[in-house]
Amino acid sequence: MAVFGLLEYQEAPPEVRAVYDDIMKTRNTDWINNFWKAIAHDPALLRRTWESLKQVMAPGALDPLTKELIYLAVSVTNQCAYCIASHTAAARKAGMTEEMFAELMAVVGMANQTNRLVSGYQVEIDEAFRTAG
Amino acid sequence: MAVFGLLEYQEAPPEVRAVYDDIMKTRNTDWINNFWKAIAHDPALLRRTWESLKQVMAPGALDPLTKELIYLAVSVTNQCAYCIASHTAAARKAGMTEEMFAELMAVVGMANQTNRLVSGYQVEIDEAFRTAG
Amino acid sequence: MAVFGLLEYQEAPPEVRAVYDDIMKTRNTDWINNFWKAIAHDPALLRRTWESLKQVMAPGALDPLTKELIYLAVSVTNQCAYCIASHTAAARKAGMTEEMFAELMAVVGMANQTNRLVSGYQVEIDEAFRTAG
Amino acid sequence: MAVFGLLEYQEAPPEVRAVYDDIMKTRNTDWINNFWKAIAHDPALLRRTWESLKQVMAPGALDPLTKELIYLAVSVTNQCAYCIASHTAAARKAGMTEEMFAELMAVVGMANQTNRLVSGYQVEIDEAFRTAG
Amino acid sequence: MAVFGLLEYQEAPPEVRAVYDDIMKTRNTDWINNFWKAIAHDPALLRRTWESLKQVMAPGALDPLTKELIYLAVSVTNQCAYCIASHTAAARKAGMTEEMFAELMAVVGMANQTNRLVSGYQVEIDEAFRTAG
Amino acid sequence: MAVFGLLEYQEAPPEVRAVYDDIMKTRNTDWINNFWKAIAHDPALLRRTWESLKQVMAPGALDPLTKELIYLAVSVTNQCAYCIASHTAAARKAGMTEEMFAELMAVVGMANQTNRLVSGYQVEIDEAFRTAG
Repeated sequence: MAVFGLLEYQEAPPEVRAVYDDIMKTRNTDWINNFWKAIAHDPALLRRTWESLKQVMAPGALDPLTKELIYLAVSVTNQCAYCIASHTAAARKAGMTEEMFAELMAVVGMANQTNRLVSGYQVEIDEAFRTAG
Repeated sequence: MAVFGLLEYQEAPPEVRAVYDDIMKTRNTDWINNFWKAIAHDPALLRRTWESLKQVMAPGALDPLTKELIYLAVSVTNQCAYCIASHTAAARKAGMTEEMFAELMAVVGMANQTNRLVSGYQVEIDEAFRTAG
Repeated sequence: MAVFGLLEYQEAPPEVRAVYDDIMKTRNTDWINNFWKAIAHDPALLRRTWESLKQVMAPGALDPLTKELIYLAVSVTNQCAYCIASHTAAARKAGMTEEMFAELMAVVGMANQTNRLVSGYQVEIDEAFRTAG
Repeated sequence: MAVFGLLEYQEAPPEVRAVYDDIMKTRNTDWINNFWKAIAHDPALLRRTWESLKQVMAPGALDPLTKELIYLAVSVTNQCAYCIASHTAAARKAGMTEEMFAELMAVVGMANQTNRLVSGYQVEIDEAFRTAG
Repeated sequence: MAVFGLLEYQEAPPEVRAVYDDIMKTRNTDWINNFWKAIAHDPALLRRTWESLKQVMAPGALDPLTKELIYLAVSVTNQCAYCIASHTAAARKAGMTEEMFAELMAVVGMANQTNRLVSGYQVEIDEAFRTAG
Repeated sequence: MAVFGLLEYQEAPPEVRAVYDDIMKTRNTDWINNFWKAIAHDPALLRRTWESLKQVMAPGALDPLTKELIYLAVSVTNQCAYCIASHTAAARKAGMTEEMFAELMAVVGMANQTNRLVSGYQVEIDEAFRTAG
């Protein structure tokens, strides 16, 4: 159970409703998932998080599907069960196929493995990579 | 300094050279970065890691650039300095522009933030996400 | 279910009961939460952990509420569900209001975000920070 | 070296200078630390991160020193060297004494230890903690 | 529920059955745990992961019990509930006693604590450790 | 540079010298590594950490080498450079061969990979593992 319970649309004050409305409009959906209802007890956090997320996930140099895959990769690495469930759904909605998901998992798995091999073997950064900036 | 030093091509036994040759050929380059030279003291690990990586990073349902972006997202989340340096270089070689990098970082940053908000607010998985499988 | 089950007061040997008694007395409560009952199968670990925790969480240069907020910040960053639940309760008992909790989460979220931006952008430590010691 | 180098005030476009000016004014200082100069290549990220941070770290239900201690606790848990250096300096500026730092480290250390004991012993959340919300 | 459901032996294509058969034969058991059934939707990942794991966990310079303890130590540090449950079972099957488990947890707890003390106190690597390679 | 500098034996107060003496005696060596000198500014933390570590790393159901391997596995997973350097040295002193190190790294790498596959594929704990306690 969320720390302060979930703030439903009907009980929400106007500034929270305004964010909920924008979430539903932007996502072209008629419901709000628990994350937003849980943090809505702090309207400033709700607004700041939503505005940032909306800006960050909008199409740009990277398309929305690629952004969802990256979000999911981070959530899997951090092992955040809620985030994995919600962003798997979001990635599917954005066009992720089963094959894409499988390849994503394979890359995430390899990266988590080699990150530790690098640390354990105490590998120093190649000069060529240092001057890449 | 890597735990066992770096195993250079000239000193390497044939089974290690074979992997080095395949890395250079596959990547269309004439040098081997430190990671491989550091783990080459365990030829079985070297071969297994390279064969897996080659298979995982090959074009498939996801293109090579997308895979490099995902690899970088994981490495940044894990804060692996070597991996970030090497995969930033690899992503650039695969076509990552400055704008793409900036958007990637923005997504990785948001995901790491919201992953913790979810935990701290103890958000339960929505029924809609549970039945997505 | 805890690996070895939970060791209840009635079944506990004297050296475990002594720790349980001290926990209840120190915390001014009449029950023991599952964490202690789970690790009590190793009485040395139980005693060492409790003695350290008691010493560390006692009022000092930092007051007990501040210490609970810090404990919670770490637990949220590590995404330890049990620890988040138990230390949210402890922090409330120590005086954490809803407003404080909200600000705590906002700081934890920002820190987890900027920690990764720092890594991803490969930011070097400023000379002014190096000589701060 | 930061991925795109550091964007110094003199070379910065007006929208970046405006953020730099606000950072210096808010912090009552005459220099900008590397973090901001590194991410300034993405002016939108720079502005969003600064505006959020300014809002989050402002005095509220928690005072600025407590917020800095929490920021440092997260950074230590994530083992972000830059963040530890910069927020140790910031916490000192906000009033952190050596004794406070020592107590902070002791709490962070204990929390990281018990977080893993909880996981390893597979401790279930007490009913009393579940209904705390 | 696993993302794509669990692929049971009866429904599995021949290349998946071949891996399942080898798992059961190698482990001298007549059932397959959920991990394999969950990733079996990607037969290449299934085979690669199983072949690597089989090679890595085979007796060598380290005996199978020691390897299981190490696997469990990593899983506890990462707080992966499934992995902790499955590798606690595997370690027991390989001979882990309650006393061994308790000592393992104590070491894992201390390591997670001192890892953060090292970071927080910004400890530099001793010259003697640098030249150990 | 450590936050408060390193506290050398000659400058140390008697209660710190007593711990340093016990470290050197227990480890049969004539020097103190930086970790202890860095945290010695908090004599209570120094004593508590050393006493706990001494107790935890002493031979028991697990031998000292196995304990060092576990310590190193955790440090590699957390990517703590200092801890990896110091515990690689300690493990070698306790008898770790190059072959053992290589097998340790291979296990740590696989565990970090499969931990994420488990999360990403949302694998549920098998009934057989739940009742193992």
